[in-house]
Order: sequence, then structure tokens, then C-alpha cells
Amino acid sequence: MQAQKKLINSVDCCVDEALCGFVRANGGLSLLKGHRVVLRSDLENLRGKVALVSGGGSGHEPAHGGYVGAGMLSAAVAGGVFASPPPASILAAILCLHNAGASGVLLIVKNYTGDRLNFGLAAEQARNHGIAIDMVVVAEDCAFERPSKAGRRGLCGTVFIHKLAGALAEEGSSLDKIVSKVTEVLKGIGTLGVSLSPCSVPGCLPSFDLPPGDMELGLGIHGEPGIKRSKVASADEVVKTMLDNMTNPDSQSHLPLKSGDSVVVCVNNLGALSRLEMGVVARAAVICLEDRGLVVARVMSGSFMTSLEMTGASLTVMKANEETLRLFDAKTTAPSWPNLSKACVTGRSYLSEPPTMNTRPQEGTYSEGPLSAVLRQVLEAVCSTLLEKQEELNSLDRAAGDGDCGNTHAQAAKVIREWLQSHVVPGCPGQLLSVLAGLVQEKMGGSSGALYSLFLTAAAGHVSEGRSNPAAWASAMHAGTQAMRRYGGADPGDRTMLDALCPAVEELMKLPTAPTGGHLVILQAAVQRAASGAEDTRHLTAQAGRASYIAAERVTLPDPGAVAVAAILRAVVEVLEGQ
Amino acid sequence: MQAQKKLINSVDCCVDEALCGFVRANGGLSLLKGHRVVLRSDLENLRGKVALVSGGGSGHEPAHGGYVGAGMLSAAVAGGVFASPPPASILAAILCLHNAGASGVLLIVKNYTGDRLNFGLAAEQARNHGIAIDMVVVAEDCAFERPSKAGRRGLCGTVFIHKLAGALAEEGSSLDKIVSKVTEVLKGIGTLGVSLSPCSVPGCLPSFDLPPGDMELGLGIHGEPGIKRSKVASADEVVKTMLDNMTNPDSQSHLPLKSGDSVVVCVNNLGALSRLEMGVVARAAVICLEDRGLVVARVMSGSFMTSLEMTGASLTVMKANEETLRLFDAKTTAPSWPNLSKACVTGRSYLSEPPTMNTRPQEGTYSEGPLSAVLRQVLEAVCSTLLEKQEELNSLDRAAGDGDCGNTHAQAAKVIREWLQSHVVPGCPGQLLSVLAGLVQEKMGGSSGALYSLFLTAAAGHVSEGRSNPAAWASAMHAGTQAMRRYGGADPGDRTMLDALCPAVEELMKLPTAPTGGHLVILQAAVQRAASGAEDTRHLTAQAGRASYIAAERVTLPDPGAVAVAAILRAVVEVLEGQ
Repeated sequence: MQAQKKLINSVDCCVDEALCGFVRANGGLSLLKGHRVVLRSDLENLRGKVALVSGGGSGHEPAHGGYVGAGMLSAAVAGGVFASPPPASILAAILCLHNAGASGVLLIVKNYTGDRLNFGLAAEQARNHGIAIDMVVVAEDCAFERPSKAGRRGLCGTVFIHKLAGALAEEGSSLDKIVSKVTEVLKGIGTLGVSLSPCSVPGCLPSFDLPPGDMELGLGIHGEPGIKRSKVASADEVVKTMLDNMTNPDSQSHLPLKSGDSVVVCVNNLGALSRLEMGVVARAAVICLEDRGLVVARVMSGSFMTSLEMTGASLTVMKANEETLRLFDAKTTAPSWPNLSKACVTGRSYLSEPPTMNTRPQEGTYSEGPLSAVLRQVLEAVCSTLLEKQEELNSLDRAAGDGDCGNTHAQAAKVIREWLQSHVVPGCPGQLLSVLAGLVQEKMGGSSGALYSLFLTAAAGHVSEGRSNPAAWASAMHAGTQAMRRYGGADPGDRTMLDALCPAVEELMKLPTAPTGGHLVILQAAVQRAASGAEDTRHLTAQAGRASYIAAERVTLPDPGAVAVAAILRAVVEVLEGQ
Repeated sequence: MQAQKKLINSVDCCVDEALCGFVRANGGLSLLKGHRVVLRSDLENLRGKVALVSGGGSGHEPAHGGYVGAGMLSAAVAGGVFASPPPASILAAILCLHNAGASGVLLIVKNYTGDRLNFGLAAEQARNHGIAIDMVVVAEDCAFERPSKAGRRGLCGTVFIHKLAGALAEEGSSLDKIVSKVTEVLKGIGTLGVSLSPCSVPGCLPSFDLPPGDMELGLGIHGEPGIKRSKVASADEVVKTMLDNMTNPDSQSHLPLKSGDSVVVCVNNLGALSRLEMGVVARAAVICLEDRGLVVARVMSGSFMTSLEMTGASLTVMKANEETLRLFDAKTTAPSWPNLSKACVTGRSYLSEPPTMNTRPQEGTYSEGPLSAVLRQVLEAVCSTLLEKQEELNSLDRAAGDGDCGNTHAQAAKVIREWLQSHVVPGCPGQLLSVLAGLVQEKMGGSSGALYSLFLTAAAGHVSEGRSNPAAWASAMHAGTQAMRRYGGADPGDRTMLDALCPAVEELMKLPTAPTGGHLVILQAAVQRAASGAEDTRHLTAQAGRASYIAAERVTLPDPGAVAVAAILRAVVEVLEGQ
């Protein structure tokens, strides 16, 4: 078995290169030479304020460098992948902040032995330098009912502490006040994770083995084992199990929640869960918490404390009062803090009423007129033609497509016939075209349906009861064709219905300037040009539509879409000739 | 072969549930009843301004709902996974915005036939309702040298257009002005993607087959094929290949870039690439562009236009002038727009000088004093003891740990001996303790090294040349022990070195109040208590450290760490007895 290939340059330099890339991309950050320390680049703004330092192993990005900025951390110290950072780098960060004039330094540490010892050592060394320093340990994992002496692990809840402590520091709170406030908040935070896959440290095999279709509950962010393995359940069930575990009063590490409590929720992507799934999980979490009578005040959803490319999510719930929310909502320049709204999630009306809309004129909103009779006659002729030509069109289509062009057109013809049987034909041609657009959009299907609908919709605006002369029809045909070209992306010569339609419309554009009595000749010429345009498509290579995927030499018959258009035009004009 | 398990409730409802979760989590958004349309919840702020609508298939989250907010989109319309949204929903969104008083509506559409037709149809229908409407099609894919008639695909560059058009709309620009501005900008945008894995639509098999260790260049965001498949190369090489392809003047779809051009870069996670890898790719992109003489003005890095859980990234490069940057930097409330700084990436100094720091006193900064001789004698005795006990400690450790406890302590002894041979011993005991802390931190290794170092560092501040009486030593020992307990997380009774140390320190705390001449008795009692404390650990169950993973009944020997501490104290006191 080989280690998974990653998009890096080398195992040895990936942490340093990732930090460099991250810092270069974020103008508010700088990197401490010789250390894996991300610093605020505006250290001068720390004067007289408490500085905050966090950190830990790499592989949890954007933690912790992404939380460096005004209103959050002053510095983040990174170790190797999943390895605690060396005390010397932690001390270097502390000294930088102290030298910049910080009034004191608070270390925010996740509860892992290595981090506690290394941050602790740096803290004691800093104290010997005369620096006012303190440390809070975040240990909010709710996985184990009886946690070992090592205690609960520090997970994504750390990000909440960064935010709240950061807001307090930014507004000038003292070190003692910050420590006492976040110590209080920490009692009301719980986290539980679930994953559908392991992750793998660069250059190493996966951290554990999890068969496809299985999930593991309660695991840590370094691939440490969880508490339960099972088949992947539905998102709603998984979230319910997580929240049940988190709040189970029999567990020593549970989060006590009672109906009426206000909470902030973080839905954290452990790395590789799709955003679609994240949305489903966020919904499940909000609903499940609300079902317990909790007020969900805020939700943040995204990648906040990852475990490389683990396909999973963790839920962090934090009890929140007004003061907590004020600090949570405070402004920060930290690049990985999301653009959150300050609206309370529970109780907010999030559904809007849709507009009343009729994409096609409804019966009762139009009436018959002098043109109704001829329009009905034209439509009946078109429908008959399309039904007659069903097999011919299918056969042409079999040579280059999926052989259903005739069926699609016949389907449209049937729908229109059916409609004609139970409706009056509006005397306003524009209204009729809109009706037809709606019918083919809904019932014809495929790109043909969309294209005919586009043609009819764009044409509709150009003809009305009072404006139905040859010039109006010419511009309607032109507008329809242009819409087809614009949105469909094809041009004449691409072996599509445009090869029949465009030459015909070119002819029709002579209508406005034709002498009285000359209109029929133009119409007949248009039909002729459509027919030869369709016929000539047998020499064209398909550039658009399904036929474009077939080698040109295999296609020697005319394009069925163009043939259909020519037939429709012929049917229309034949009726008009009879008038 | 089975479809991959996903964290959803069902294939049928995953899109609607994800949208619901997303909208509920973001207070600035609302959902249009009966449609997959995400709307700004503050529609009243659109009055008199141009409204922007985008959308497309789902599976690209946070596109497009995440870009809805003041300064970006007014609405986003989602289809099924990788399927274009129905025209009726697009029209519903348009009508909502029109009814809210928008002066016009701009549709921003990615160049896919389905989206063009459906958005086009809705646009034509809206126009028939008398709405001022226009549409821009984003087609910035640089993959194909000779793109088919369908044209270049619309990819992550769409997000830039959302941002720039959104900023223009927010500041009150007219529809025509916005269209002409973004049409101009579109000519200077290019995108190319690479992936190490396929993705899979919920309920379906993977979109294509890619053996582990292979990558595919130039693929679309729906798993459409790319242009080249190869073994995964280094991140630097991959990025160079991508930018070479993107700017290759022989390609009809290349992005023309010349030295001196200013660009904005988006490093887009296609779904499942780890954030660590994202950082490496961002670095490679910045360096590669700068090597070509380009000025990288801004970099955004994250998940902006995903392809479900595809393990890959795309690079989008946009030429930018001052006006483009102003619009890019403008404020937005859209939840998925990142918290970016306005600093120019190229030319920014991002490395900070580290502070001068000496974690331990350097020679020349201290001098001998009256106490130097006895301190040297004590250290020599401690070192001899630890070297003598090396095998005994190893043997005790083999019963419950990895058998190297003696080696670790012997290593410390050797390092201290070596140091003694080439250095004077400072007359200030605090300085000596700091020196020792530094030596064990750097050379002893393991948790023992960190714990001893913590003890010594915390103790160091309590004794100095002028303050070296028994009371001072007692408080130093106490402080050291407290630091060990606090940061190490163990307590007496946990079967650690604290079981020897704590009873001894308890005894030593009698020193400050002891009568003159009574000190030695207390020291001897402390040694005695350490010894019995160590002996008694054979009856304790390990709660911390490596031994905590071994079943209690298998551990019947005393804890080697506690034995070592007792031996060290005995060696110290034996020297003092001789004084």
C-alpha cells in the first residue's frame, strides 16, 4: 500500500510552503523568520492591549493562522503536521507581541499533552522574562463518557474562544478579565465529530481504516479513534445521535443544555465533505436543536478546524448570553472568520412569498378577435404536418442523434392540438405566441423545447391585435431568430434549425418594404429558402447540438431540426395562400 | 459497484435541504417558497438599483447562494445537482426583484447550453413583462486550444463577475454600464482546473474514472473530461503547467498576459483538497505569476465554485486595473465572500524579524559566586546517580512503557556533565536552573524533557544570588511542581514522578518556618517521603503518561519516573549533608 498522492512539492516542506502561501495571500498577516509563526502585520495596534497566541500541529487549517487579525488572535504558532510546535517558536511569538507593547499575553491551547507542555514551557519562560502571561486550555470534546486523566480533547470550540477572547482584547479588557470570561464560557461548549473516511498525513498511510459505507463517531482531529462505528445513517439520524451523545447527562463530558437556552452552533467541515452535504447537516443541526426547545442564535458553517482531507463534520454548540453574542458578532479582520449576519436564526422568517406570475396568458385574460380563425387554421396545419413527418424526422435524427426529433415535434403538435380543442384562440397574435411558448416549454422538452419557446417568447412582444401587419410579423420572426441564436449559441452553418430559419427570415425582412400585393411572393420565397437551407445541411458539419459529437463523414442526411422548421413554414404559408 | 455513501437524508431531497440549511444559517438570506431561489432578505434595499441574478446546477456550493448579499447578487437560482434550473424559477426570482423596485435585472450565466437556454427564456419572458433585463455569459475556461462551437465553459471566474457587477450595482450604476464594464473585464479572465479524483453525484457512480496517483488537467466542474491525464506531479510543476496552458498564445482560449500586468488570482478548492495543499498551491501560483513579471494584486483562496467532493483546484486569473480593484475590494454582506485584505500581494513585505531571545542565560552574561562550588558538586552527584541508575530505570520502564526511561535520564546527565566541563556554574541559582531547563528541553527529549524543563523554568524565578535561603528554595520547588502539575495534567496518585515529588515538596514547605539548624532534618525527611512515594506507586494505576494504556494488574513495579525523582533528591541532599 502506498501513501496517498497529494498536491504538494515534498513532505518535508509542505507545512512551511502552505504557511507561506497562506500568509502571502492574506495582506494582514506576516510570518516570523525562522519560525512557523503567523503574526498580525499591524503589531503596532497591539500597544497596551492583551495579545492572544494560539497554535498547535498543522493539518487543521485554517486553524490557527486563519484566525490571526484584529479582534481575534495576535499570533498563531504551527507545528509539523499533527505535531505540537516547539517551545522556542511559541516563545518567539510571545516576545514579538511583548516587544510590540502588548500589556499581557494569553495562550489559548487545545488540550493535548504535547501542546500543554510546550505552550506551558514557553509561558514559564516568558514569565521569567517579566511578561504578564496566562494560558487557557480548551477541552470541549464530548465523545467520552468517562474521559481518561488526559481529559477531554480540544477541538473546534477553540475557534469560539479565539473569537470571544479576541473581541475582549480588542476592546481593551485586562488579561485577568479575559481569562475569567473565557473560563466561564468554556463550561458551556461541547463538540462531537463524525467521519466517513480517515485522513492521511503527507507521506503516510491513512490514519485508520474505515470501510466505505461506514462512519465513525466521536473521533479526534488527528485520526484518533472515536467511540462508535456503524453504517452511514441518514444525516438527520447522525446529527441526532451526535447531539444525544453531546448532551447525555450520564456522560462526564456532556454539555448541559436545557430548553430555552440560547446557543451558537458551528458546523465544521473536517476537510472533504461536500458543501452540499454541509448544508444538509446544518439544516439537521438547527432543526434538531430547535426541537429540543433551544434558541439557535447563530450558525457558522464551513471549514474551521479541519483534519486534513477527512470526509466528516463536527458540531460545536456553545451556550450564549447577550454578552457572548456581542463578542461573537464583533468585527474582526481575521481572514478565515466568515461573513456572518447578526440575525437570530431561530424565529427568523426565512421564506419569501413567490410573486404571482403567469408565464403564459391564462384563459379569461384574452378573447377572440378577427384573426382567431386564421390563426387556428395555421396551428392545425402545422400540427398535422409535424405528426405526418414524425417518422421522417426520427429517421433523419437516427443518423446523427438519438432518433427522437420526430417524437419531440409530434409531442408539441399533440399538446397544441389538445389545447386548441379546449381553448379559444386569442385574437392578439402576441398572446397566442406566449401561450404556445408556455406549452412547448412545459411539454415539448429537450433543447428543442427551450429553443422554440425562446423563439416564440421573443417574437411575442412584436405582434399584437392592433399591430399584426407584415412588417410586425417580420420583426417578430427576426426577434425570435435572434433570441435563438443568442441564447442557443449556434449560427447559420452549424447544421441546426437556424440553417432553415435564417435564410427564410432574411427573405421575410423584405416584407416591410414590399409593394401592396407583393407579400405572398415573399412568403413563398421564404418557404423556398427554408427548404433549400434544410436540404443543404447535408453538406454541413455539426457544430452545436448532439450531432456535433459525431464525425462529419458519417452524417450525409439533412439536419432534422432544419427540415422540421422548413415544413412548419411551408404549412403556415399554405394556409395563408388559401386566404 | 455501489454509489458512494453521502451524509444526506435522501438523493431526492438533498438539494432542497442543503439550500434550506444554508439559508437558515445565513441571516441575510431568504428562500423563495416553491422555488430553489435564494434571495437577499433585505429586498427593500434594491429599490432603484440594478438587481443581479445568477445560478445554475447545484453541487457547486457555495456558488451561487453564498454570493447573495449587498454588493454581490440579489438572487441565486439553483437547479438539481449539475442540472440547469427551470426557467419558471429564474423568472420568479426576476419578478421578485422587479416587484421590489429594482431598476433593471442582470442575469450572470455560466456558459453551458442548458443555463443559456433557461436563463435566456426567463429573460425573454421578463422582457415581455416590461422588465429591463440583460444577460452576460461567463466563458473563461482556458482548457481547450480549439473550443467547440459551444464555446469555453463558465467556471470560477463567474464569482469575480458577481463581485464586480455587484459592487457596480450597489453604487447605483445603470444596467448598460454594468454590462459594458463586465463585458470588458470578461476578456481578461482565464481559469484552468486540475483534479486528483472524480466526484460523484448523489446516488450515482463517480463521474469518471481516475486511478489513484493520476491527475487530470483542464476538466470542468461537472466531471466533464479535461485535456490531459498524467501522474500527479509536484504542486509547483502542476501550477506551472496550468499557467502555461492558460497563457499559451497558440490556444484560441488563452488569457493574454504580459509582464507588468496586474492580476487578481483565485485559488479555488474543487471540494476535497486539504487546506494544507491549498496553501502550497497558492504559494506556487503567486511565485509562478511573479516570475513572469506580473503584479499579483490580490489572492483569494478557498472553496468558491466546487464540484461536489472533487479533490482538485482551479486557478482563475483576472487582469485588474485600479477600478477593478476598487470594485473587488468593495464591501459585501454575501456570506461566502472571504474576509480579504486590501494590500497588494506582490511587493508586500511579509516576513518579520524574530526577536532576539535567549531562552537560557548565555555564557558571559553570568559569573561565578560563592554558591557556584556547591551547585557544581550537587549537579555532579545528580548526574552520577542517574547514570548509575540507567539500567534499573530502563528495567522498571519495560514493565509499563517503552523501556527507555533510564536512557532518557542518562542522556540528560551526559548533557549536563558535558556542559559542566566547559562552563562556569553561575553563582545565581536561578540562572543555573534556567541553563539546566534549556539543556533538558533541547537534549533530553520526550515528555520527561518537557516536564523537567517546565519544573526548572518555573522554579528559576524564585531563587537568585541574593535570595537563596531555604524559604526561597522551598517556594522554587513548589512553583516547579505546580507548573508540572498544571501543564502536564497529572496529579499525585496518577503513578507519575509527582508521586515522589509532591510529598517531598510538602515536606520542604516546612523550611520557611523551621528553626535555625532544623533545615537538614526537613531535607532528609523530604528525601524519605520521596522514596516511599516512589515505592508506593507500585500499588497505583497509571492515569497519565504512556503507562496509562496498560492494564493495571500487569504493572506491579514502581513508576520509573518517580524512582528517578527520589534518586535525584537523595543525591542533592547527600551533597548538602556533606557541607
